[in-house]
Amino acid sequence: MHYIAETRSNIPHDLVSVSDYAEHAKQHIGHDIYEYIAGGGADQLTLRRNRQALDNIQLLPKMLKDCTQGSSALHFMGESLRHPIILAPVAFQKLVHPQGEIATAQAASSLETTMVVSNLASHKLEDIAQNLDSGKWFQLYFQESREFTLSLVKRAEAAGYTKLMVTVDTSLHGIRNRAQRAGFVLPEGVEAINLRDRPPLPRKTLSKQQSIVFQGMMTEAPTWEDIAWLQQNSSLDIIIKGIMHPADALKAKQIGVAGIVVSNHGGRALDSIPSAIELLPKIRKSLGPDYPIIVDGAIERGTDIYKAIALGANTVMVGRPQLYALAVAGALGVAHMLRVLREELEVTMAMMGTPTIGDITQDTIYRGEHR
Amino acid sequence: MHYIAETRSNIPHDLVSVSDYAEHAKQHIGHDIYEYIAGGGADQLTLRRNRQALDNIQLLPKMLKDCTQGSSALHFMGESLRHPIILAPVAFQKLVHPQGEIATAQAASSLETTMVVSNLASHKLEDIAQNLDSGKWFQLYFQESREFTLSLVKRAEAAGYTKLMVTVDTSLHGIRNRAQRAGFVLPEGVEAINLRDRPPLPRKTLSKQQSIVFQGMMTEAPTWEDIAWLQQNSSLDIIIKGIMHPADALKAKQIGVAGIVVSNHGGRALDSIPSAIELLPKIRKSLGPDYPIIVDGAIERGTDIYKAIALGANTVMVGRPQLYALAVAGALGVAHMLRVLREELEVTMAMMGTPTIGDITQDTIYRGEHR
Amino acid sequence: MHYIAETRSNIPHDLVSVSDYAEHAKQHIGHDIYEYIAGGGADQLTLRRNRQALDNIQLLPKMLKDCTQGSSALHFMGESLRHPIILAPVAFQKLVHPQGEIATAQAASSLETTMVVSNLASHKLEDIAQNLDSGKWFQLYFQESREFTLSLVKRAEAAGYTKLMVTVDTSLHGIRNRAQRAGFVLPEGVEAINLRDRPPLPRKTLSKQQSIVFQGMMTEAPTWEDIAWLQQNSSLDIIIKGIMHPADALKAKQIGVAGIVVSNHGGRALDSIPSAIELLPKIRKSLGPDYPIIVDGAIERGTDIYKAIALGANTVMVGRPQLYALAVAGALGVAHMLRVLREELEVTMAMMGTPTIGDITQDTIYRGEHR
Amino acid sequence: MHYIAETRSNIPHDLVSVSDYAEHAKQHIGHDIYEYIAGGGADQLTLRRNRQALDNIQLLPKMLKDCTQGSSALHFMGESLRHPIILAPVAFQKLVHPQGEIATAQAASSLETTMVVSNLASHKLEDIAQNLDSGKWFQLYFQESREFTLSLVKRAEAAGYTKLMVTVDTSLHGIRNRAQRAGFVLPEGVEAINLRDRPPLPRKTLSKQQSIVFQGMMTEAPTWEDIAWLQQNSSLDIIIKGIMHPADALKAKQIGVAGIVVSNHGGRALDSIPSAIELLPKIRKSLGPDYPIIVDGAIERGTDIYKAIALGANTVMVGRPQLYALAVAGALGVAHMLRVLREELEVTMAMMGTPTIGDITQDTIYRGEHR
Repeated sequence: MHYIAETRSNIPHDLVSVSDYAEHAKQHIGHDIYEYIAGGGADQLTLRRNRQALDNIQLLPKMLKDCTQGSSALHFMGESLRHPIILAPVAFQKLVHPQGEIATAQAASSLETTMVVSNLASHKLEDIAQNLDSGKWFQLYFQESREFTLSLVKRAEAAGYTKLMVTVDTSLHGIRNRAQRAGFVLPEGVEAINLRDRPPLPRKTLSKQQSIVFQGMMTEAPTWEDIAWLQQNSSLDIIIKGIMHPADALKAKQIGVAGIVVSNHGGRALDSIPSAIELLPKIRKSLGPDYPIIVDGAIERGTDIYKAIALGANTVMVGRPQLYALAVAGALGVAHMLRVLREELEVTMAMMGTPTIGDITQDTIYRGEHR
Repeated sequence: MHYIAETRSNIPHDLVSVSDYAEHAKQHIGHDIYEYIAGGGADQLTLRRNRQALDNIQLLPKMLKDCTQGSSALHFMGESLRHPIILAPVAFQKLVHPQGEIATAQAASSLETTMVVSNLASHKLEDIAQNLDSGKWFQLYFQESREFTLSLVKRAEAAGYTKLMVTVDTSLHGIRNRAQRAGFVLPEGVEAINLRDRPPLPRKTLSKQQSIVFQGMMTEAPTWEDIAWLQQNSSLDIIIKGIMHPADALKAKQIGVAGIVVSNHGGRALDSIPSAIELLPKIRKSLGPDYPIIVDGAIERGTDIYKAIALGANTVMVGRPQLYALAVAGALGVAHMLRVLREELEVTMAMMGTPTIGDITQDTIYRGEHR
Repeated sequence: MHYIAETRSNIPHDLVSVSDYAEHAKQHIGHDIYEYIAGGGADQLTLRRNRQALDNIQLLPKMLKDCTQGSSALHFMGESLRHPIILAPVAFQKLVHPQGEIATAQAASSLETTMVVSNLASHKLEDIAQNLDSGKWFQLYFQESREFTLSLVKRAEAAGYTKLMVTVDTSLHGIRNRAQRAGFVLPEGVEAINLRDRPPLPRKTLSKQQSIVFQGMMTEAPTWEDIAWLQQNSSLDIIIKGIMHPADALKAKQIGVAGIVVSNHGGRALDSIPSAIELLPKIRKSLGPDYPIIVDGAIERGTDIYKAIALGANTVMVGRPQLYALAVAGALGVAHMLRVLREELEVTMAMMGTPTIGDITQDTIYRGEHR
Repeated sequence: MHYIAETRSNIPHDLVSVSDYAEHAKQHIGHDIYEYIAGGGADQLTLRRNRQALDNIQLLPKMLKDCTQGSSALHFMGESLRHPIILAPVAFQKLVHPQGEIATAQAASSLETTMVVSNLASHKLEDIAQNLDSGKWFQLYFQESREFTLSLVKRAEAAGYTKLMVTVDTSLHGIRNRAQRAGFVLPEGVEAINLRDRPPLPRKTLSKQQSIVFQGMMTEAPTWEDIAWLQQNSSLDIIIKGIMHPADALKAKQIGVAGIVVSNHGGRALDSIPSAIELLPKIRKSLGPDYPIIVDGAIERGTDIYKAIALGANTVMVGRPQLYALAVAGALGVAHMLRVLREELEVTMAMMGTPTIGDITQDTIYRGEHR
């Protein structure tokens, strides 16, 4: 697939950055859907902080280095990656494009990009896997029924997915006021198709002293015990997504979890949490240099990726931009968006004088100590 | 009373947060009244700082905790509270709704919420008490005449109020320029009905060397001696509202005052005062772990309540939102507003991995030391 | 003069703060004149910083103090002041009102306010003195001719002025781009009438290697020697206005100058200078508790005055608001503006629990150490 | 040439600062060209930081100094400069004015200003040199062919240029999204005329595993070896432009490079780099007091120049304002712009009490330690 020629000829000339896709997407999807995608929790504090924290990080370049042998390739968790950009699990992609996750998988294949398929995908996980030539990972929410949870895992194993990413930071939906105010509801024809056979939830009646939150919703939420159970019941590497506390990160490593995603769910979970990027150095320090760490949250520029790696991440995940690019130009849009990101990363590496991923260390960060 | 069903069916779908009530209220009340309610002192510095200080506080969650036994209930000053949200004393509630404090009291009852009735209420304190099934506290301004002050206290005792909250930070009104510019005056039909029998103020003539402030208005202001006098003349627990200085907090405890409200009067008193939340840790430290501390000022989110408790408060008070909700939807609005706040608090507790009020400690605050 | 009654009945109800006068003044004077008055130097950095520095200072009040003996009066440099507010020297007051400095002097008298008459006044210094019952000080720019400079001083002495305030920070006008862009020129009928008899400047021809700045304009600028000469030639107390560097402050004291004004000329001199209020504590510390210090720059609120005194000033000067109030309502406007400021100061003192000027110490400043 | 009289009579009265030229220029050039000139890299972070960093620096003036012997002249790298303002290399000046670099050279001559002629000039370097009476320096990008690179150097030597400024921070163009979004392409009639005889680039075919960045564009980028080669092949002093890392600065000095420009290419190279002014003190400290350092980036005010010198620069370079002034008023505009800058610098020196360039030390910077 000669995507570069194609994308160059088909994408409007003023679509030159990931943020351009966000802006253009508004013309392709309804306001309610846009608000559902773009919105963070409650007052958008964490959403804004995610962006601000990245913008506040400064890079200090070295000049006149030979970069002609450079490459953004890396090995990560036993797999070879062409570049450190991974497609984060994003639910319900039919919301913005009829081909949904299938189109995204095709774009991922073309850019040799690992894709994490959401268990809330609007296409069957098996169909997505068939369209995905590059890295195939599966994201899982724990379900009320362990049996049904396990059935999802087994389907993922059978379809060729190589890792399980278990999201643990949104047992509750968070306070999604922007989506609520816009009146967002899942439109007809878009559903969590992989959960169709989920057994109905048992009817509970809460007493007056009980809480709809604690005795209601939280009864579905996983605990560390559930993680241990899953480790015993699947042969796949398990990655926990949604860790922010260094103590949780250490615990994950100690119980043999294969890797973590330091993440505040793109600012969509609890509003008031710091940016993942701020916690990253401390978490890297406590886990040691070799433990696999992914980070996400407002990754929109090659410099964002570079900063994340410099501060301790191995790879980054990109979420919302998938939907914006899909809305604007389908598979071609996602491919172009990924290409922009990868080229921006490589341009950053070249301009910093650090031609390989391994060269991107904390020393490249400017901390104001040079005054 | 099955308030949840009711509120869910009657409140517009885009009223999903306390700030939505503030916004919607503008359509239900006059500009002058809105400005009187929303305005802070002078240049709104303290008003903005109250919000900003809360927004700047970051929370660091722990994942995968079992929260199924969670609860937001607590014991406080000898009473059992369903949750740590208290309705602050708010004057003249007929300004925004004909049922005024009666409607608020009904909402408080339905949500098992303690209400502090203002001595400037626009309904008789006895009538309000009759509509209030949950915690009944009474707020007092010292009056020029000790005799009349005491008569108010005795009426409150007789009506079943269990605590006296004495406000000490607004002997002077402060510089309320927003209300002045909007031309606010108390409209006909709204009055401090409980002060009807107040004896007329003695006529004073100031000499040219005297100050309208010091020798005029401040002659009504209470001093520590007045607090001591009140302690001797009432059997009720006394809470002092409006303490900001740690030295004042310590003095209150030392003379046997039952509790304090750390408060800058919602930014309506002296403009340039810090946010109560900023002083809280130091005050808690100097008073010890058991002394009752309430905090108020810009509490509009479950996360705000959580932060206040984490930094040393036992409970919080909510002021202006009562009026906004009352203006928009009467008792139902106040009930819905309270439910939103309580659920947001419980969602925060669940997402933080701290299922009881006692679990909310200073350790949950992210201080940037994790870099 | 029963100014309180008068002002209350004649000033529109929405003119309730000094900043209201600034806003209203736009309707009474031309855009060019407004820009000349309101503008700071170059990019307005120092102008904005003056306001911001005051706004950033926080006050920590004590409650329940007896303030009935309070007063804002003080003794300063051998004179009794009713309050610590002084009218700064402001040139060309006819620009905004035909009565100009005469009206201002009447307002000053009515509020028992010391007025510093500018040597660039648009009325004769003798006429202004005749209308001024309260403190009379005279401001001086050094002129090219020492003889003419001395003639101004002698006229001031003869007219009853008791102090000489020598402005030293604007030998050059600074870069007044806002006034330039608005096309401001002194309109006909407004002139520096007290300088009418100034001898013509000697014609200079600069060589190509010479600078219009250094060898041109700066030849009129005074040096420390000129100050010493003035001390020998006038019996009046000399105050130097425009000191920012602690070393300059110390030098002024050491050579026997009677007092200083810590000032950046309202942000109109060199853009990029810090706010006077920021330098004040260090300057007070180096000069000791008794040396007379005045501060100016963005004093618009009672809290601003309070903060300046808490940080080391004895008194403050108010500049631009004179012109705004004069433009809006003549003498009555200036009197009302001064009354608002004084009452705001007294309200601040009362609410802080510090009933006399001597009670306003650095301890009243909140420095964030209470966390 | 009596430029002062001329400029005073021909420039509109509201063009009083460098930023005014930027604003007015929008009316003289197309939006795409304006965006190409004004735009920084990617999200404009570094562009904004350049301005902000300068604005945040505060100056602390001393009063009453004798400045009548003042001058802004200096000796620098063996040449006598009338003032420390140098015209930065700016490509393609015909974009904004038909006379392009010829007009700029005439203005430079009139203001005795050193001009660095870009190797991407739209006029022949020999023609520009003929119109330039003041300092003549030549800026060089390394070309794919060393032979062609050397031919440019030899032409510069022959034309009388005395220094070579080698730009090393833009082997890659950076991510110039603002120019891209505006659809900027070099219009017909504007070309890099001095590179006309450049041999065609060899056609490369990249394999699928190769990167268009590393194995494509970066093969033209110079390394330290190329600098050494140039030192051996030219008799001119070499200045490296685009150094930000103190380690690179030290290396340049150690290998005998004559001077450096601390620069982030006006925010046009890698977005996220700190401001040059922030690195300056550390670089000056590590290079010692005598090594020649130039700084650029957002120099728009006399105070900017002053701050740069105070923090360690010998001279500054001014880039974009050349184009804005050229667009608005041709040679006259550039001359006026330069005069404004020089006079603003001298006014700053006079108001700071530092009448010579040598007096401008780090002691003039206010660091907040005076509290």
